[in-house]
Amino acid sequence: EILAELIAFFQPKALAGRRVVITAGPTAEPIDPVRIISNRSSGKTGYALARAAREAGAEVTLVSGPTLLAPPQGVARIDVESARQMHAAVMQAVRGADLFIAVAAVADWHVANASDSKLKKTTGGGAPELRFAPNPDILADVARLPDGPWCVGFAAETENLHEHARAKRERKGVPLLVGNLAQHSMNTETTQLVLFDAQGHAELPVLPKMEAARRLVREIAERLDRARPRH
Amino acid sequence: EILAELIAFFQPKALAGRRVVITAGPTAEPIDPVRIISNRSSGKTGYALARAAREAGAEVTLVSGPTLLAPPQGVARIDVESARQMHAAVMQAVRGADLFIAVAAVADWHVANASDSKLKKTTGGGAPELRFAPNPDILADVARLPDGPWCVGFAAETENLHEHARAKRERKGVPLLVGNLAQHSMNTETTQLVLFDAQGHAELPVLPKMEAARRLVREIAERLDRARPRH
Repeated sequence: EILAELIAFFQPKALAGRRVVITAGPTAEPIDPVRIISNRSSGKTGYALARAAREAGAEVTLVSGPTLLAPPQGVARIDVESARQMHAAVMQAVRGADLFIAVAAVADWHVANASDSKLKKTTGGGAPELRFAPNPDILADVARLPDGPWCVGFAAETENLHEHARAKRERKGVPLLVGNLAQHSMNTETTQLVLFDAQGHAELPVLPKMEAARRLVREIAERLDRARPRH
Repeated sequence: EILAELIAFFQPKALAGRRVVITAGPTAEPIDPVRIISNRSSGKTGYALARAAREAGAEVTLVSGPTLLAPPQGVARIDVESARQMHAAVMQAVRGADLFIAVAAVADWHVANASDSKLKKTTGGGAPELRFAPNPDILADVARLPDGPWCVGFAAETENLHEHARAKRERKGVPLLVGNLAQHSMNTETTQLVLFDAQGHAELPVLPKMEAARRLVREIAERLDRARPRH
């Protein structure tokens, strides 16, 4: 803890005075009280980014799906499970925030006919009939807010990263979209990030996740200062 | 570690000379490379039982779905993800075993049309069409083996525990079925177990999971000694 504080002390304070909201981790969508639909996100990238933003002087709120990670020192964490819970927590947390970074791997759908009791294998004999309903789009909803924060999205893709990331940036209506190749960053300690903005794209080097997070915070802070200079 | 060894040393050696295979944790069934269907099992009960069986002198193999738990000292762990992987690992591991304890929360179905690349929200516009296919029944398959191990099943239920547990014991064809109420043991440190066998049922007290595991190992060892005396 003392070491973490020391490292933080020597980081450039690129986000001093900024209020930042970050989402991280997977969401868990209930099928019944026991079964869930989730995803393989460990939460490491979002937690590293929360720590890096805190080191850079920001006041950080981390809205986190279920992970076993400890919140970084000095970061306020709000725990949620489903995408709808995350949406509600974020819409509240971004009031007055300067920057929103959506890293969580949010489920696109939830199970519309989720059961209050455990589905039995023998009921009806067959496989469950799951009906899906779309989840709210957290990033697009925040990006649309009048007087909302400057927004950064993430895209974890398994192929055609550039094409998907550019399309996602347009669709979400955000100034910066950060892409990475899922198979190169899930369950690993390193990551390679590619930044997509109105000017084009820029590849960062392959870095340990914590280093990549610090580098990304500097990139974001520069763009934020240009878009919304501090008073 | 030294403390764990000391505690182990003073436990009764009720399973000395026995080879035990235990499954633990959830399974993860892929929808695509990122999304999974899983369940809320932490793996704590199965891991506690593996430790208790090891303390009781057994040679323990733990076949584990994805958890963030460390394997207990002296226990051989085989890591798997899906129910089908767990089935294959168990069928191999139970050769020559004396006792099989199926604690894992195994998915009943897998996604028959799982995708090799990440499903896009925009593809086709709508929700995914998931088709389910049944998974193999690990416990029933082991219980059916000629010269197979003595088998213990688990049932985590949210309601009607007695009715469901008795039915499961019959369906799986196992001499002992251990029931617990899911809402009283998931994400908690204590558990209450109910033992169902041919004679009826017996409720154990509410206990910390590690104490419940030691108590259960004694109950199992007594029944195993009656059913299959050591040479």
